[in-house]
Amino acid sequence: MSDLSQELQYTLEHEIPLTQHLGLRVISYDENGLTLSAPLAPNINHKRTAFAGSLNAVVTLTGWGLLWLILQELEIPARVVIQDSSCNYLRPVKDDFSAFCRKPTPQQISRMASMLKKRGRARIELSVEVRNETTAAVAFTGRYVLMLIEERAQDAEATSRGF
Amino acid sequence: MSDLSQELQYTLEHEIPLTQHLGLRVISYDENGLTLSAPLAPNINHKRTAFAGSLNAVVTLTGWGLLWLILQELEIPARVVIQDSSCNYLRPVKDDFSAFCRKPTPQQISRMASMLKKRGRARIELSVEVRNETTAAVAFTGRYVLMLIEERAQDAEATSRGF
Repeated sequence: MSDLSQELQYTLEHEIPLTQHLGLRVISYDENGLTLSAPLAPNINHKRTAFAGSLNAVVTLTGWGLLWLILQELEIPARVVIQDSSCNYLRPVKDDFSAFCRKPTPQQISRMASMLKKRGRARIELSVEVRNETTAAVAFTGRYVLMLIEERAQDAEATSRGF
Repeated sequence: MSDLSQELQYTLEHEIPLTQHLGLRVISYDENGLTLSAPLAPNINHKRTAFAGSLNAVVTLTGWGLLWLILQELEIPARVVIQDSSCNYLRPVKDDFSAFCRKPTPQQISRMASMLKKRGRARIELSVEVRNETTAAVAFTGRYVLMLIEERAQDAEATSRGF
């Protein structure tokens, strides 16, 4: 796992503690995109398949995590929040599962970065999928908002966290 | 809390173990609808507000729980699964939160029950809201599918669970 993937794993575990109960793991990050996974056991429901709320949390974080990684690469200090999402639960997930979010094109990334620098905000839509071998089990689309962290705000944040 | 609300609390805790980590509680159920709540602390995110994945899990379960309660009242043995949902994260949730799902009208409920008995399946759309005092913080719509449990399947299920 790359240093950046390890940093994302650490960030998820420490900033969003519920991810520890989901058993969320960063599996791979490369030029194609980001894959996160979770075991079935802690996420099981009344039908012995993956609970929709767990699936939704994992896909939401896969999109969020991909943007977090891209911002690290770009060295732009920005926060990412989700604005809205839609999710289709197409088939039951009966095993440990993983979610994949494709990386936006270099053009989309550079448009996002220039918008963020110019306006202090940018918006991007990402699709995430959970697959059962060859078929999609969950299809998710989320719109995320990125907000530049001003230098003064960064200082205040660093102080409030004690570093 | 009514016996039925207590049963729902028990069902959520035992059938969907993640709800224990969400700190999910059944608050009230009456002719108006169902309210579930969760504390902020275990559901916190990188911005010290409620994590979108936790919010989504709670609203998904509020709709699911309301249908579970209605099916108990109707004494119809059926399973409920979510088909798809959309969720707007309108404002950050900075405190312990609760989600409310309004009960469908008696006409909608009787239509759902007759469909379920006739076809073995019914579909219903529910809206759930998380509020910050006077304004909506999260607006969710979910489409749920109800499936009649056949007597033979019920027996098999009872056996497989050891009761």
